[in-house]
Amino acid sequence: MSAEPRLLGDGAALQIRLAGRDLRFHAMWLRDNAPDAATRSPANGQRLITLLDIPANTRIAEASWQEGALAVRFEPEDRRIVFDPGWLLAHAYDRPAPPTPGWTGEAVRRWDAESAAEVAVENYDAIRSDKAALMRWLATVRRYGFARLTGVPARDGMVCEVASLFGYVRETNYGRAFDVRAEVNPSNLAYTNIGLQAHTDNPYRDPVPGLQLLACLRNSVAGGGSIVVDGFKVAERLREESRRGFELLSGRCARFDYSGTKGVRLRSKRPLIELGPDGELIAVRFNNRSAAAFTDIPYHEMADYYAAYRRMAELVEEPSLSFRFQLAEGDLFIVDNLRVLHARDSFTGSGERWLQGCYADKDGLLSTLAALEEES
Amino acid sequence: MSAEPRLLGDGAALQIRLAGRDLRFHAMWLRDNAPDAATRSPANGQRLITLLDIPANTRIAEASWQEGALAVRFEPEDRRIVFDPGWLLAHAYDRPAPPTPGWTGEAVRRWDAESAAEVAVENYDAIRSDKAALMRWLATVRRYGFARLTGVPARDGMVCEVASLFGYVRETNYGRAFDVRAEVNPSNLAYTNIGLQAHTDNPYRDPVPGLQLLACLRNSVAGGGSIVVDGFKVAERLREESRRGFELLSGRCARFDYSGTKGVRLRSKRPLIELGPDGELIAVRFNNRSAAAFTDIPYHEMADYYAAYRRMAELVEEPSLSFRFQLAEGDLFIVDNLRVLHARDSFTGSGERWLQGCYADKDGLLSTLAALEEES
Repeated sequence: MSAEPRLLGDGAALQIRLAGRDLRFHAMWLRDNAPDAATRSPANGQRLITLLDIPANTRIAEASWQEGALAVRFEPEDRRIVFDPGWLLAHAYDRPAPPTPGWTGEAVRRWDAESAAEVAVENYDAIRSDKAALMRWLATVRRYGFARLTGVPARDGMVCEVASLFGYVRETNYGRAFDVRAEVNPSNLAYTNIGLQAHTDNPYRDPVPGLQLLACLRNSVAGGGSIVVDGFKVAERLREESRRGFELLSGRCARFDYSGTKGVRLRSKRPLIELGPDGELIAVRFNNRSAAAFTDIPYHEMADYYAAYRRMAELVEEPSLSFRFQLAEGDLFIVDNLRVLHARDSFTGSGERWLQGCYADKDGLLSTLAALEEES
Repeated sequence: MSAEPRLLGDGAALQIRLAGRDLRFHAMWLRDNAPDAATRSPANGQRLITLLDIPANTRIAEASWQEGALAVRFEPEDRRIVFDPGWLLAHAYDRPAPPTPGWTGEAVRRWDAESAAEVAVENYDAIRSDKAALMRWLATVRRYGFARLTGVPARDGMVCEVASLFGYVRETNYGRAFDVRAEVNPSNLAYTNIGLQAHTDNPYRDPVPGLQLLACLRNSVAGGGSIVVDGFKVAERLREESRRGFELLSGRCARFDYSGTKGVRLRSKRPLIELGPDGELIAVRFNNRSAAAFTDIPYHEMADYYAAYRRMAELVEEPSLSFRFQLAEGDLFIVDNLRVLHARDSFTGSGERWLQGCYADKDGLLSTLAALEEES
């Protein structure tokens, strides 16, 4: 076994060696994360105590390796807790600071026009009946923020059926599902035959629906091709070109609104590029149609902000970053709507183009995927 | 009329005087926000052009007041656009920087045990039939993050009916609606008779449901009282006491998870106190039961982080910040689940306690409220 644990600061923390790394853990953190049945419900995993149930002066009185596990005795409770070294290694927080703002985790792979070809296409019957196929498809969404499906029955409501394979439809004022076809008096420019610049959907909502599914029920028009763009790749390119531009688009809020329907006045205030507090890239919002007047950028930064916004728009239209494909009856695609932009070419009035879409949330998809991975 | 507009930087911007303030606007911002029918669809308000349709070298060639409106001619497009001065004033961005981190807008009023008594109670029949009453009730939610309702028929599914008055139910793995009553093998500690520390619901989701509604269908137990706490008030108190503690809880991510049900592995990584990029306080998450191991706080900050987390937990339990009430059959309450924590006292096994809850999103509520306010 490894060397014995070393107490630090009179038991305020300890240091152990695991997988060749020296790792420190605080007494309070260990006590709060104790896995024993009095701290965590063995049935549902929920914590049974509050932080205030743990004495503020908690310290480690003793620590040792026992049968490969870390045994810790806490004072003043005089409570002995055993920690699994694998769990400790997986949850170690004694490590270097995160990289530069705009980083993403290992689960995310950015793509461009060329590498988007890696994104495998799955079949509806397969993902419906075979857990391995479903897992593969969901993992594609997690990795690329985009995935395709063929063989979806071209029927009203099927798009929601697909969503129900991994999560729950997010109903909105557009309904549970919504039809995207040319209309005479459209409440939204999507319901016309004009081309739509690549965009994320509904940035005027807060929270934005994290997933959009679009199924093709009919397509006999000329044009109307589909395009997707990895917004995380766009953000990365922007940061490489101009750190200042990236800081402005991530550090200042944009505004969006939608008032196209009676009784609906949706408004949001969020950045075009959203970072977590630790600089992780967590979302991209981009939509020329619903962008409202930006009023949260100081006057002296506005010119530079607009220059960066323009550069972002150029990157969004950059052919080397766009993946194009044609939707046929029975095809469906899903995008991570906080990451991947979608667009369509204009189309002519002859023939019919009928897509049906729905929204869902990413947490449900990731939860289903994690559960499948655990089972397999 | 006011003095004539003054061009700045060779037409890169202009300055006007409105309501006693000197306000500057950039040429690009004005052009992008032009209200004319070629820029914005008169039918649905959506922008018809992309930023790339506007020349990068756009400047103001001339500007003058004409019949009370600001007439601007842009070069190189040679396009003349007229702006409403009221609109310009409402969207002016030439103003001082936002205040210290943790600020909230005018729509939000923080409350404590005493001032929570201001929160009026409405009647279900009234808000269902009278738009003014509905508007009042929704405005209470926007202001206080909490509102109550009486006279809700104590029937299965009514909680979703109430949500449909302003928005859409967010369906989750708990269903569209979920029952909160004591169970023998609970998948969640909520389904027991133990007391629950004040918490926000489902911080392990991302996005977190922005609203929770809880309706009381039966209550004949002893105990089980309801408590709400304004998390924005808690955050303010914490900031007043310790700027450093506030910075840690807002500047570092916590983690949450839930695995109590087969096939469900929900995980999130978000701060306990969430600020927008401009320091606006936008969310509070707090839940001892589903807090996972926090692994995104550097080792040298963890002790101070835990001290601030403990202080937050103390404030959450501070009686002067808690509003207590008893739910009777036909009562319902709603909380802004990104702001207001709710708790319940333990109760005894004699008698029956049956609540039914559902989730919804805040954007739908705020949209309905804004539309009602516009109509009235």
